[in-house]
Amino acid sequence: MWTQKEITLKSRSRGFHLVTDEILGQLPELKGIKIGVMNVFIKHTSASLTINENAAPEVRVDFESFFNHAAPENEPYYRHLDEGSDDMPAHLKASILGCSLTFPITNGRPNLGIWQGIYLCEHRNYGGSRKIVVTINSE
Amino acid sequence: MWTQKEITLKSRSRGFHLVTDEILGQLPELKGIKIGVMNVFIKHTSASLTINENAAPEVRVDFESFFNHAAPENEPYYRHLDEGSDDMPAHLKASILGCSLTFPITNGRPNLGIWQGIYLCEHRNYGGSRKIVVTINSE
Amino acid sequence: MWTQKEITLKSRSRGFHLVTDEILGQLPELKGIKIGVMNVFIKHTSASLTINENAAPEVRVDFESFFNHAAPENEPYYRHLDEGSDDMPAHLKASILGCSLTFPITNGRPNLGIWQGIYLCEHRNYGGSRKIVVTINSE
Repeated sequence: MWTQKEITLKSRSRGFHLVTDEILGQLPELKGIKIGVMNVFIKHTSASLTINENAAPEVRVDFESFFNHAAPENEPYYRHLDEGSDDMPAHLKASILGCSLTFPITNGRPNLGIWQGIYLCEHRNYGGSRKIVVTINSE
Repeated sequence: MWTQKEITLKSRSRGFHLVTDEILGQLPELKGIKIGVMNVFIKHTSASLTINENAAPEVRVDFESFFNHAAPENEPYYRHLDEGSDDMPAHLKASILGCSLTFPITNGRPNLGIWQGIYLCEHRNYGGSRKIVVTINSE
Repeated sequence: MWTQKEITLKSRSRGFHLVTDEILGQLPELKGIKIGVMNVFIKHTSASLTINENAAPEVRVDFESFFNHAAPENEPYYRHLDEGSDDMPAHLKASILGCSLTFPITNGRPNLGIWQGIYLCEHRNYGGSRKIVVTINSE
């Protein structure tokens, strides 16, 4: 059984944002699934997806600080400059974190750990709304 | 055809550990599969999974050293401090490396390269045993 | 429906290379698929795959510069030295970027964003040709 759906996530500020509920709220199909796999793919090169701690909000603040140190703006060796100083670091962060998630579905919901949530990682200052494609394949 | 199984990996020290055999040894189902895909998902936010060199054990030692440099403890800007100095770096490493692997199955076994093995990346000092979910979908 | 194919990508110099067309040109099967998922897996530990900006070639140059800074050669703490100074950084980059991609197929083609392309990330000075396994599962 297959379900595929394009979802537009609402526009968010630069940073790391918990979007588990925004995504799952648009997938009533999940309820009937006993065993399956879900792929969430973001159709952008300057935003990304990851799964991490869903409780303490400071974790998401520290993610933003860390990745700004790890892939800084205005490195003297950057050549891709025309789209603003936040653009090249955004591409780098997007590839470090990745553009898709694949996780199990069990008995009607994503089989994540109790502390795991889905982050939208918005790497641009003004990224606008972001499109994801969710594909569910199940028994 | 679907198989889904939750597996508890035995507790390991902080570092990078080859767990290919521990995982595959619990999947006798693989033998009968001609074509498929296997997803291995770790249900934690301070341990991760990656595929890398399965022979030279120094590679895994160097991974531990490198990631300790890349995501150090006690950065002055960290705000998430209550769970110990190894916790915030653990979350960061988990997202850099990722919480799931998806790879092909061909003729009864994972179609990995000859030098590829599955690493459990244990980022906490005392992480305890770790739970993974393996989902196999095949022809 | 399942399709699985091993593809040998032609040998490339160290750096980041757009290989979308080289891969898709070998997958005429895609045309008939309405909904599905495609997994691309690289069978090596010193080259990797990522999806990023497919237009400006400077982005790929900046990727090479950035990852050379992020995972430098000749770190004094490296112990895995026998295969050359480009080898240990290659393993690290491979795990940071990842060995597989999973993305949706919709109406006969990969449902990527308009600016997204598949990069082969060649981390060795002389990596030679690289083998990937493409597995397509569809409705």
